[in-house]
Amino acid sequence: MVRVGIVGSTGYTGMELVRILSRHPEVDLAVLTSESYVGRPYVDVYPALQGGVDLHCEALDVAQMARRCDVVFTALPHTKAMECVPEFLDRGCRVVDLSADFRLRQKEVFEAWYAPHTAPELLSQAAYGLPELHRDEIRDAPLVANPGCYPTGALLAAAPLLAEGWIDPDTLIVNSASGVTGAGRSLSLGSLFCEVNEGFRAYKVAEHRHTPEMEQEISRLCGRSVRITFVPHLLPVSRGILTTLYATLVHEVNEEEMLRLYRRYYSGEPFVRILPGGVTPNIREVRGTNLCDIGLRPDPRTNRVIVLSAIDNLVKGASGQAVQNMNLLFGLPETLGLETPPLFI
Amino acid sequence: MVRVGIVGSTGYTGMELVRILSRHPEVDLAVLTSESYVGRPYVDVYPALQGGVDLHCEALDVAQMARRCDVVFTALPHTKAMECVPEFLDRGCRVVDLSADFRLRQKEVFEAWYAPHTAPELLSQAAYGLPELHRDEIRDAPLVANPGCYPTGALLAAAPLLAEGWIDPDTLIVNSASGVTGAGRSLSLGSLFCEVNEGFRAYKVAEHRHTPEMEQEISRLCGRSVRITFVPHLLPVSRGILTTLYATLVHEVNEEEMLRLYRRYYSGEPFVRILPGGVTPNIREVRGTNLCDIGLRPDPRTNRVIVLSAIDNLVKGASGQAVQNMNLLFGLPETLGLETPPLFI
Amino acid sequence: MVRVGIVGSTGYTGMELVRILSRHPEVDLAVLTSESYVGRPYVDVYPALQGGVDLHCEALDVAQMARRCDVVFTALPHTKAMECVPEFLDRGCRVVDLSADFRLRQKEVFEAWYAPHTAPELLSQAAYGLPELHRDEIRDAPLVANPGCYPTGALLAAAPLLAEGWIDPDTLIVNSASGVTGAGRSLSLGSLFCEVNEGFRAYKVAEHRHTPEMEQEISRLCGRSVRITFVPHLLPVSRGILTTLYATLVHEVNEEEMLRLYRRYYSGEPFVRILPGGVTPNIREVRGTNLCDIGLRPDPRTNRVIVLSAIDNLVKGASGQAVQNMNLLFGLPETLGLETPPLFI
Amino acid sequence: MVRVGIVGSTGYTGMELVRILSRHPEVDLAVLTSESYVGRPYVDVYPALQGGVDLHCEALDVAQMARRCDVVFTALPHTKAMECVPEFLDRGCRVVDLSADFRLRQKEVFEAWYAPHTAPELLSQAAYGLPELHRDEIRDAPLVANPGCYPTGALLAAAPLLAEGWIDPDTLIVNSASGVTGAGRSLSLGSLFCEVNEGFRAYKVAEHRHTPEMEQEISRLCGRSVRITFVPHLLPVSRGILTTLYATLVHEVNEEEMLRLYRRYYSGEPFVRILPGGVTPNIREVRGTNLCDIGLRPDPRTNRVIVLSAIDNLVKGASGQAVQNMNLLFGLPETLGLETPPLFI
Repeated sequence: MVRVGIVGSTGYTGMELVRILSRHPEVDLAVLTSESYVGRPYVDVYPALQGGVDLHCEALDVAQMARRCDVVFTALPHTKAMECVPEFLDRGCRVVDLSADFRLRQKEVFEAWYAPHTAPELLSQAAYGLPELHRDEIRDAPLVANPGCYPTGALLAAAPLLAEGWIDPDTLIVNSASGVTGAGRSLSLGSLFCEVNEGFRAYKVAEHRHTPEMEQEISRLCGRSVRITFVPHLLPVSRGILTTLYATLVHEVNEEEMLRLYRRYYSGEPFVRILPGGVTPNIREVRGTNLCDIGLRPDPRTNRVIVLSAIDNLVKGASGQAVQNMNLLFGLPETLGLETPPLFI
Repeated sequence: MVRVGIVGSTGYTGMELVRILSRHPEVDLAVLTSESYVGRPYVDVYPALQGGVDLHCEALDVAQMARRCDVVFTALPHTKAMECVPEFLDRGCRVVDLSADFRLRQKEVFEAWYAPHTAPELLSQAAYGLPELHRDEIRDAPLVANPGCYPTGALLAAAPLLAEGWIDPDTLIVNSASGVTGAGRSLSLGSLFCEVNEGFRAYKVAEHRHTPEMEQEISRLCGRSVRITFVPHLLPVSRGILTTLYATLVHEVNEEEMLRLYRRYYSGEPFVRILPGGVTPNIREVRGTNLCDIGLRPDPRTNRVIVLSAIDNLVKGASGQAVQNMNLLFGLPETLGLETPPLFI
Repeated sequence: MVRVGIVGSTGYTGMELVRILSRHPEVDLAVLTSESYVGRPYVDVYPALQGGVDLHCEALDVAQMARRCDVVFTALPHTKAMECVPEFLDRGCRVVDLSADFRLRQKEVFEAWYAPHTAPELLSQAAYGLPELHRDEIRDAPLVANPGCYPTGALLAAAPLLAEGWIDPDTLIVNSASGVTGAGRSLSLGSLFCEVNEGFRAYKVAEHRHTPEMEQEISRLCGRSVRITFVPHLLPVSRGILTTLYATLVHEVNEEEMLRLYRRYYSGEPFVRILPGGVTPNIREVRGTNLCDIGLRPDPRTNRVIVLSAIDNLVKGASGQAVQNMNLLFGLPETLGLETPPLFI
Repeated sequence: MVRVGIVGSTGYTGMELVRILSRHPEVDLAVLTSESYVGRPYVDVYPALQGGVDLHCEALDVAQMARRCDVVFTALPHTKAMECVPEFLDRGCRVVDLSADFRLRQKEVFEAWYAPHTAPELLSQAAYGLPELHRDEIRDAPLVANPGCYPTGALLAAAPLLAEGWIDPDTLIVNSASGVTGAGRSLSLGSLFCEVNEGFRAYKVAEHRHTPEMEQEISRLCGRSVRITFVPHLLPVSRGILTTLYATLVHEVNEEEMLRLYRRYYSGEPFVRILPGGVTPNIREVRGTNLCDIGLRPDPRTNRVIVLSAIDNLVKGASGQAVQNMNLLFGLPETLGLETPPLFI
């Protein structure tokens, strides 16, 4: 049994880790930390989990926690994770970090988009935790930087075309829409029911911090530096990200050829489903799962291609992918604990 | 008082015409036709309007209706409008047609995307009813082709940049998301609550029939033939279209210059609101109104611009704009009957 | 023109007052106060109202405000209104108070359910602002205590049966469900989108503070002291209250007799609609309006009657009714500013 | 392995059976029948299940199906199940029927509320499939009549008080609210997204067919014939039923005593959770599970008690309970296949 701890367990991604791991057959959920609920039963925070979790929330004590855990998930705001991750690693814990702190390889890029980095020496040791692209690297990494929710959806949609060189990467436009859990559980006017319900809007237009993360991975796939346009939107739903990706083709390709490429590229991947021609992914159809559904369509009138992907932002876009990465780290079947079918209705 | 009739009054756009016109101070709502509810009080179909409408649904009788009406709104499926519009015109009625039948100037284009056209001689007489672009033409037209919902949002967002030549029109990508009323009131699996709720998906990717309509008007603005990519999505809300438009700039422009252009272009327009820099439009904030909110942002990293517009698809995207056109036809103040503030919460 | 001020204009009921009054033909909206947004344009707080309101938020200054206003709406939390209302009255302003501070006639009852009362001498001068029950009293009152949202829906549903003595008042059970605007705009975990969406629950079961308010008015109607059971629920919608009222009949009555009673009792009331037999009210069908829809059904199997009412909690349940009261205070047509048809879809 | 067939597998309850059973470790899902999709892959109907189900839809052939199955779930409209159930039983299949056809013991009651019964001889052989009340009877029954969704929620909430004689059963009022999946997947105007969204209404007030089913079981618990009032409402959510039950206490009981009774009565029940005092159940917190959450509160002011229960209407209210019954029939652990934690956010 893998002994697991979660730092920051009472936010939405922390809760989703608890929800998944409480039923994982090879996991012993050992420590849950929280800033706001120290000493209280975890199910006081999320009564729906009554009967499935009997831990109490603890204050963070890295030394003690490292003794009780083989792996730690850090589900903290960015810049908070880098404060404790180095010590967890020093004490021999493996770490899956769900923050942005270790996703960007270049200190300068991180600091341009986020804040000063206090543990830059770890940037080169962290594996970017998108198993479909970096499985081998993840297996051996002491530290896994779990991808952002938007990059997960966008990169899985774009990777085959980029790897194959079928599109001009400079024409890439990533248009995404996310459910409200993406904003976390903190109190803000913009997350109130009555401010979101029956609405739809873009935010952080062409300035969202997931942009450099996408660019880093796209550039790796292309072998050269690429800049993209990324516009996220806020959907009046709780879970899900739909990404609509636009790019110009470098030569004519029909739908069937493109589907073949995608099926081959993701052949054997347990969590990627390539939809048949003419079928479009829907965020409902992956809800509660670690799946990524992908649909595509070339537009011969304009020589572009449109690729669509749907994920559950809390699962494949965060906590489910983190568990997938943990499974890789410990040599477990990659799908363990992640087999529940979608609650699509 | 203008005597008004509505053909196809029990669908959602018909209902919205009734809702607006029942309170219009210069309108005498004279005839409501329906196929399914002939002889029944209109409020049997929409009990919420009890107290505001006392008409019964009638079967369509063009000759008789033409005598009782100065203007007729045809809210019918495409190809159905062209069956009765010619006779209404012959009998001296003015017509605002909410279908697609008279929007495309070229018979060949209509027939390539829709069906054979049985009244092609009227195509050149119809004014494309987007008042912000074609106000003068509309005033004198016997027949107004009320624009499609998606084209309304997209064209208002794009027009200033296209007219000014600031973007390369061949790079235009129109990404839109609509509420479910856009699908009308007919019974289909895809419109059931449980099939839409908590979902989000694209549909008719790069093959929606509003594409040639946008291209026609964009080409008029540019002075040359242009093809665009258009991808609509279905939102789990009742009303609203958000359009996110991407294009490459032909020269560098900053946000302030761009806002000035938009404010100037739409100066004096009662229904277009240019939002301040950094503010993005939200479909909630125009709900129930004929407003179009526009926000924009240049992306200097990629030399692109993103323009966003929000409309209520049933109002500015259909019935409200039709009433605006009627006001123009009869020399009434353009905002008459359309002044209600948004029900944004 | 009536010069109007709103104290606490940036909460949801304040916003709804602004939305309604900004289009009221006999109102000059003169002063908007706010604690959090002093000095800022009102439309910064609610950008959707851009174009309709050009006031700035002011700090509360009772003396100065009283000079600039004929009537003041106080849209403050309970116990805050009683701090400023006496001075407004002293300075000759009429006041419509949307808080609970002046709804209960008996100081002891108020203090048992709320808090110590600092202006108890006004309790006897305040009219309970439910025009359908107390129209004449309201007209002459210096101070109108605008009813709570739940009592409005429950009392309008129950009044005819109580007044007529057809039910045993001790058997009255009031089961209500409200949209989330009822909780106001303050930041609380329970109002976050993701905590409300797709949920439904009861709250403050048999201990909600609107209970004594209902009991006071029910007792007045019966001529004796009555206690009821009241259970409110939270709906995942923005607006609306549906009340389902249960009571035992004192003698057999059929549906038709009951409908006749209700039609007679509310005859001439512009905002009450008695639905035909077999039709049930829906909160959607009164959205954005001051209407109260009522449906009813006797259950001869159990000798009970079920009465249902639907209101928009922000309009008839708060700000719309406040404007109706203001119209009464100033001898204006009662429906002025309140004629918009429902945005029911 | 139990060989399982589902008759009527493409409606919502059929789909939910497939969703649950496709992951049940002791089930071999053998036959899925459908009227509308014969010959098509099941995942054409519900693409979200791609990867989890590889059966095709078949036309119903009872003889052949009986050979291939040990147990058959009939998920058909009422009166359709009674057409095929007798033959399944004759051929040695055990049957869990999700329709209303075998729930009522008395032919006359069934015929008064539904339609003529063509297999009345089976009524006495069918076990009413509420395991918490009738576990032993179910184990040995050839035919299990799976309870209606509303009765499940109401009976679990009421049973302890009725069994103990703490309430006057004649005062029982059952007020329920259900998500839209309760209406099934058939095309009807009232199930369209835009007709349900942002709405709330009662329907079939005091005349819903689940009334006699509740009365039958309540009468069994009381040992005498009882009539109740039942009013269902339609919630704008996909899943969930909240039941709010009102009754008069026969003697004074405080909350703690009542909680003790409930904890004792449901002690050892894997799917019933008694919430702590002051906590109310929420349909979100049981979503996707076979759980029933119960909360309660005495109202000493009126001598009544309010009991609240939340279930997922498709799981504990239909398909999950059917699987629980199947587990009982085959001596499997009762929770097998039903352990997934709720998708409460």
